[in-house]
Amino acid sequence: MADLILTTFDWVPETPRGYVRDIRVRWALEEAGLPYRVKSVPFDARNAEHFSHQPFGQVPWLTDGDISIFESGAILLHLGNRSDALMPADPRGRCKALEWLFAALNSVEMASLPWSILAFSGNTGDTPGWKRLDEFLKARLQHLEPVLARREWLAGTFSVADILMADVLRLVDRFDGLEGHPACRDYVARATTRPSFVKAHADQMARQTEQQCPLSPPCGSKPTVAKPPIGDLTNPANLQLLPCSVGVRA
Amino acid sequence: MADLILTTFDWVPETPRGYVRDIRVRWALEEAGLPYRVKSVPFDARNAEHFSHQPFGQVPWLTDGDISIFESGAILLHLGNRSDALMPADPRGRCKALEWLFAALNSVEMASLPWSILAFSGNTGDTPGWKRLDEFLKARLQHLEPVLARREWLAGTFSVADILMADVLRLVDRFDGLEGHPACRDYVARATTRPSFVKAHADQMARQTEQQCPLSPPCGSKPTVAKPPIGDLTNPANLQLLPCSVGVRA
Repeated sequence: MADLILTTFDWVPETPRGYVRDIRVRWALEEAGLPYRVKSVPFDARNAEHFSHQPFGQVPWLTDGDISIFESGAILLHLGNRSDALMPADPRGRCKALEWLFAALNSVEMASLPWSILAFSGNTGDTPGWKRLDEFLKARLQHLEPVLARREWLAGTFSVADILMADVLRLVDRFDGLEGHPACRDYVARATTRPSFVKAHADQMARQTEQQCPLSPPCGSKPTVAKPPIGDLTNPANLQLLPCSVGVRA
Repeated sequence: MADLILTTFDWVPETPRGYVRDIRVRWALEEAGLPYRVKSVPFDARNAEHFSHQPFGQVPWLTDGDISIFESGAILLHLGNRSDALMPADPRGRCKALEWLFAALNSVEMASLPWSILAFSGNTGDTPGWKRLDEFLKARLQHLEPVLARREWLAGTFSVADILMADVLRLVDRFDGLEGHPACRDYVARATTRPSFVKAHADQMARQTEQQCPLSPPCGSKPTVAKPPIGDLTNPANLQLLPCSVGVRA
């Protein structure tokens, strides 16, 4: 079996620590018990080699033998085809996992990400733009809530769809956006207490907190934090590393 | 081969006409030459049967024999597995199509959709929230531009990735968001002059314009329009049917 190599940044500012999207891939690899190595690329100097793997200058990407693949959704689906621990084996179950994997990204994160960007950067309050995006997210959660109240996992058994949906909702929860949605909160708790998430999260935090800030001038992030605070996104170094990866350099 | 049945709304207001997401599925089915039928559900009365197929109360969904699948990305991938006209046959080409399919949805539409929501509803102008989302979209287009300048189609040959990316960019172009990105504009033109898109678009428009507005009170949409105007989204009937499906009822 070919070596699986996950590539992520060598460092990130405090704000997005624990939320960078390589966590989704780490989590899936841990669930499947697939052996892998982690490589890193500089956060502050993205070169042509980086863009050849990830055209938007983001992370993560995965190499699997001579194949290099970017986009966390694509990587998870690729891994799902390698392990029954990540996708149901029967065609109907696979379809369920597939539709919910896309729903996590394109129905829920599509609403939660712009909401998080404005929440991160403090552009909330009584503006029509914020209200519009807040309504968009609430409409999606309103329909997701009864689904998650009725089932443990989206496709029957735990799958890549749950890795994505739980990771998407966990960021909403960070800004208290799941208040009034107890089934969504319970689901996040259920997913993120799985040993594979706990290990993936600890590994991401360990890697991303072991270095001093490489930026010039320094962004002010401390090398280690027990629990990452919701940081100041007027600092461009922080904005670059939102989980959504807004404001890419280079 | 089982019957393929695409379900969409029986009517939509003027604003989103021609942009409802069933166009992606129609386009793929036309490209692949797969026989299909179109069914419709009421726009204004979404019942439990509707939610059992599409938990967010949106369209489209596809039934393929005894499988029912929602999310346009999931449907296109499902169809891609049935036809070489939609996905390259070799593993490396398939991976390319897969990563770009997700990039269209999760890297580009993730930025363009909130931007479109604010553009649609007139919440642009000199606000920090709008600026943040506008920067987000521009950063993505900046990186997409050189990619599209170098290649005709994202995965080498035309694929489901191009259907999604072109449909995503076409909405940005509607609000003149591709100015300064000639390769993106050329790509949209290249994709949307394909006979399969032309037919899919005409079919969608024909279906959605043949009825009078069923809302009470009427939303003011005319039954037929040659080219849908950028409508007034202070009207809730219009907001509900954004391609993103903001402000779902029921």
